[in-house]
Amino acid sequence: MSALSDEQLYLFDTTGFLVIPGVFGSEEVTAFRTELEGMDTIDPGFAETRRYRDLPSVSPLFAELALDERLLGPVRDVVNQPLRLLEGYALRRSRGSVLYMHGGNSELLDLGGRSVGRDLSITHTYHDGKLFCPYVKTLVYLSDIQSPDDGSFCYVQGSHKANFPLLRPRAERGVTTSLVDDGFPTLTDVFVRAGDVLVLNEALMHGTRRKLTDGDRLLAAFGYGPTYLTEWRELDGETGDLRGAGYVDHDVEEDFVR
Amino acid sequence: MSALSDEQLYLFDTTGFLVIPGVFGSEEVTAFRTELEGMDTIDPGFAETRRYRDLPSVSPLFAELALDERLLGPVRDVVNQPLRLLEGYALRRSRGSVLYMHGGNSELLDLGGRSVGRDLSITHTYHDGKLFCPYVKTLVYLSDIQSPDDGSFCYVQGSHKANFPLLRPRAERGVTTSLVDDGFPTLTDVFVRAGDVLVLNEALMHGTRRKLTDGDRLLAAFGYGPTYLTEWRELDGETGDLRGAGYVDHDVEEDFVR
Amino acid sequence: MSALSDEQLYLFDTTGFLVIPGVFGSEEVTAFRTELEGMDTIDPGFAETRRYRDLPSVSPLFAELALDERLLGPVRDVVNQPLRLLEGYALRRSRGSVLYMHGGNSELLDLGGRSVGRDLSITHTYHDGKLFCPYVKTLVYLSDIQSPDDGSFCYVQGSHKANFPLLRPRAERGVTTSLVDDGFPTLTDVFVRAGDVLVLNEALMHGTRRKLTDGDRLLAAFGYGPTYLTEWRELDGETGDLRGAGYVDHDVEEDFVR
Amino acid sequence: MSALSDEQLYLFDTTGFLVIPGVFGSEEVTAFRTELEGMDTIDPGFAETRRYRDLPSVSPLFAELALDERLLGPVRDVVNQPLRLLEGYALRRSRGSVLYMHGGNSELLDLGGRSVGRDLSITHTYHDGKLFCPYVKTLVYLSDIQSPDDGSFCYVQGSHKANFPLLRPRAERGVTTSLVDDGFPTLTDVFVRAGDVLVLNEALMHGTRRKLTDGDRLLAAFGYGPTYLTEWRELDGETGDLRGAGYVDHDVEEDFVR
Repeated sequence: MSALSDEQLYLFDTTGFLVIPGVFGSEEVTAFRTELEGMDTIDPGFAETRRYRDLPSVSPLFAELALDERLLGPVRDVVNQPLRLLEGYALRRSRGSVLYMHGGNSELLDLGGRSVGRDLSITHTYHDGKLFCPYVKTLVYLSDIQSPDDGSFCYVQGSHKANFPLLRPRAERGVTTSLVDDGFPTLTDVFVRAGDVLVLNEALMHGTRRKLTDGDRLLAAFGYGPTYLTEWRELDGETGDLRGAGYVDHDVEEDFVR
Repeated sequence: MSALSDEQLYLFDTTGFLVIPGVFGSEEVTAFRTELEGMDTIDPGFAETRRYRDLPSVSPLFAELALDERLLGPVRDVVNQPLRLLEGYALRRSRGSVLYMHGGNSELLDLGGRSVGRDLSITHTYHDGKLFCPYVKTLVYLSDIQSPDDGSFCYVQGSHKANFPLLRPRAERGVTTSLVDDGFPTLTDVFVRAGDVLVLNEALMHGTRRKLTDGDRLLAAFGYGPTYLTEWRELDGETGDLRGAGYVDHDVEEDFVR
Repeated sequence: MSALSDEQLYLFDTTGFLVIPGVFGSEEVTAFRTELEGMDTIDPGFAETRRYRDLPSVSPLFAELALDERLLGPVRDVVNQPLRLLEGYALRRSRGSVLYMHGGNSELLDLGGRSVGRDLSITHTYHDGKLFCPYVKTLVYLSDIQSPDDGSFCYVQGSHKANFPLLRPRAERGVTTSLVDDGFPTLTDVFVRAGDVLVLNEALMHGTRRKLTDGDRLLAAFGYGPTYLTEWRELDGETGDLRGAGYVDHDVEEDFVR
Repeated sequence: MSALSDEQLYLFDTTGFLVIPGVFGSEEVTAFRTELEGMDTIDPGFAETRRYRDLPSVSPLFAELALDERLLGPVRDVVNQPLRLLEGYALRRSRGSVLYMHGGNSELLDLGGRSVGRDLSITHTYHDGKLFCPYVKTLVYLSDIQSPDDGSFCYVQGSHKANFPLLRPRAERGVTTSLVDDGFPTLTDVFVRAGDVLVLNEALMHGTRRKLTDGDRLLAAFGYGPTYLTEWRELDGETGDLRGAGYVDHDVEEDFVR
C-alpha cells in the first residue's frame, strides 16, 4: 500500500528529499522533451531560464504525468492528506543560469510590525508513523546533471527541520553573495540522470549551482498539497479586504544577494 | 502592538479558546440583530437551526465587522501569518437545537486505505514566542447564554493538543451517544453574554449543549487563516484530477451518534 | 498489557493527571495510616505541614506500596522508559496549610546570565502512540478531600503543555499573591476520597487550596522516572566541579508570593 | 555571552554535531598525549581498542580539561540546563579497530512487552531560541584523521531528528553488516586534526569507519548533561526494587551486526 520503502521514508524524513532513479524510461523522457519543444515559454525573470506555464492545462501528456502513480504514490506517502495539484511547470535553463537558495524551516517572514519564523505552507510534522508535509514537489529530470557545473540541485543538510533562520542573520553579518557560489559547510550536491525523479519537501533549503556547461538543463515540476491549499500563486502580502489568496515568500536568497 | 495580553495568550494557548467579554456594546449588538432580521436563511440540516450564509458578501455591515480590529487584532496574534477571511456566517437556534462535538487535534481522517491522526488544516504550532494556528474562528455572541440549558459552548479540556483520538475509539467501544448529552470528565461549559467574543482554535474539540430554553440563540461567526488556505467549503474527498479544493472532515460526532 | 484504558490515557494526556478512584480499600488505607502514626516526621518548612521522609527505606509496608502494580502499571504507561523510583514520602497537613502552585511546562529557569523556558526533568513528549513523561508522581490519598476548604488539589488547565510562562510575567505585573487564593480563569479543583490515586505529570502547574477545615489531610506520594535520572534531591544550582547532582527548581509561586 | 556563533548554532542544530577547529594548540595536545602515556587502560571489549577510564578522577590535567571553558562554553549553549559532568574517558585505537553506528533519534528500545521509539536520555528539543540537548559529548582529537581509512567519524544525515527507526527494520530485512562497511546514501565522513573539538548531540547516529592505517587514533571524550542525570553507567534493564540507576541502550548496530 505504501509506495516508498522503509529506507526511502527514512531518507525523505531525515534529508527532506528523495531521489528515485530511473522512474521514466528514455522513450518517455524523449516524449516529454518533444512535447515541450512545441510549447510556448515565458521569461520568469531569471537569467538564461525559460518557463513553461501550467503544464496540466495546456498539455494532455503533462496532465497525465501530473497524475501518474509513479509521482502520486510517493507524494501520498509524505503528504498523508486528501491531495490536490497545486502547480505544474517546466524549466529550460542554459549556461549562466542559477537558482538561488530558498526554503528553510525557520527562515523569517515579515508581517506588519512583527517577524515570524514559521511559514505554515511548508511546516511539516510527524504523527504515529506518518509524515505530514503540506507542500511537496516532484521534479522530473529530462536531462543529465552530473556535476556542479551542470547546475546541480544542492541543499543545506537538515534545513527542513532547522530551528534557526540562516539567511537573514547571514545578510545582517554583511554577506551579500549566495551559498551557491560561496559554499557552506553542509551544502551538498545531488546528481541525477534524465528519467530520475526527485521528491522534495519544500521546507528544505535548496537551489542549484550556477550552470557553467553548454546544453539544456530541462525538468518538469509538479507541486502537491492538501485540498485546503489554494492553487499556487504568489501574493504580495495581504489584501485590504482579506479576500486575496496566495503564497507569501519568507526570506529567500533573492532578498539579500546582490 | 499585540492585541492580547500575556495572560490572554496564555489562556488561548493552554485552553484553545479565549472569551473577550463586552467587545461589542448593546447598540452594536442590536444593529447586528436587526441586520440579520432582514436577511435570508437556509436550512443547514441541523434541527431547529437556521444559517445565514456568506455574511461579508451580502451585508456591508457584516463585511465591516469581519474586518473590525476588535476581531482581527486577537486573530492576528494567534495566526501570525498573512491573513485571509475564510468564511462568515450566522446561526439562529431555537429550543431543541444542538451542535455535536467536533475538532480535536488527533481525531482520525480516512484516506484511501489508510487512516491518519492529523488534519493539517487545524494543526497548530508554536515557535519563538508566537502561536501559529491555521484556522481560527471568532464567535460574536448576539444573545446571552448563561446555562447549559441555553445551549452553552462546551469543550473537552486540552483536546486542541491531544495526542490520541477520542471519538472513533469511543464509537468502537459501542458508544453511540454524544458527549454533549453523556457528559465527559473534562467536558466544560462556557457562559457568555451578548457582545462577548469567543476566539477559537478550531483544533479544540467543541460543540454546544442541547438548547432546552425558549428564545433565540444567535451568533455571527468569522473564520480566518493564512492566505494560502482556500475559502472554506466542504469537499467530499479528492477529485479525480486533483483539481478540487476544500476542507475534508476528520472524525466528528455526527459520524457516530445515532 | 496496558494498565490504563484508551479514555484514561486520553485524559492523562490532555489534562496532565488522572484520578483512579478506589484503588485501595478501606483496610489498606487504615493500614497505611496506622503505619504512619508510628513514624517520625520532619518540618518541611511549610506551615501546618509535617513530612514523612523516604518511606520505602524506613517502612517495609511502604517499600511494597512503592512497587505495587496498581501504581506501577499506570506509571509505566505514561513513562514508557526503564523505570526507577525517585522518591517516596508522605505529608500530613492541618488547618491553615497550603501548597502553592508549581510545575508548568514553560516556566522560567535562570542559568548564569540566561533564562530558559524548559526544565528537561519535566519535559514530556509523545511518539507513535505512547507518552514519554520523565517525572511522574502517584499520590495515594489517605483522607477525603471534598471541597476547596479541605485543601483540594488544583491545577491550571493545559499548563502541562503551555508554550508560555505564567508566573514570572504575573509577578512582573506586580501580583504577589497566589493563584490558590486569587483564583485564575482556568484554575480547577479535584475532589478525592481516601483510597483514590492521582497519577500526576509533574509538568502540570498544580498546588492545593488553603485548608480551612479541621482534621488531617494525609497522603503518600511516590515519584518515578527513567533509570538515568538521579534520586530526587534539591540542588542549589551547579557545583564548581560539575559533580553535584539534583533537581533545580524553575519558577514556582514561592519565588514570588509574599 | 554565547560561545557559539549564529552559524555554529545553526550547524549544530541541523546536523547534530559541530567541529571547532584548532581549539587546542600543539603544546596542549602533546601534554594530553604525554599524560595518557603514563596512565592505565582497560580492554573495553572492542577490537584493537584501549580505554582510559574516568579521566577527571585519575588525572588533574584531565580534570581541568573537563571544565575548560573552550569545552564548557559550547556545551552550555546546546544543553541550556544546569550542567554536570557525566563521564570522561579516552580511547586509543589501532589498525583494525572500528566503532559501529549508534544513536539515532527514533531507534527502538524494548521494555517488558512493548517497544518504544524514544530514549529520553537523548531526546532533545528547542524552545524560544535555545536548544535543549540532554546528552552532549565533546571529543578532543589528539591525532589527525584525514581519510576514512584513518577511522573517521561518520554520521547519518539528519538522524538526530529522525522520526523513524533505521537499524531494526534494516536487520529485519536481513542485513547483518554495518553501515560503516556497507555505506548508506547519507552516511557522511568528518575529517579532523589533532586539537580540533567535535561537539556531539548523542541523538545523532554516528560511529567511525574501520581503521586501516597504521599509527594510533587517540581522543579524549567528556559527556555532559543536566544535573538531574546520573553519572553515565550502563544498566542492564530495570532492577527489581527500582533502585538501580543507569543508561539503557536502545538499538545499536552491535545488536544486529555479526
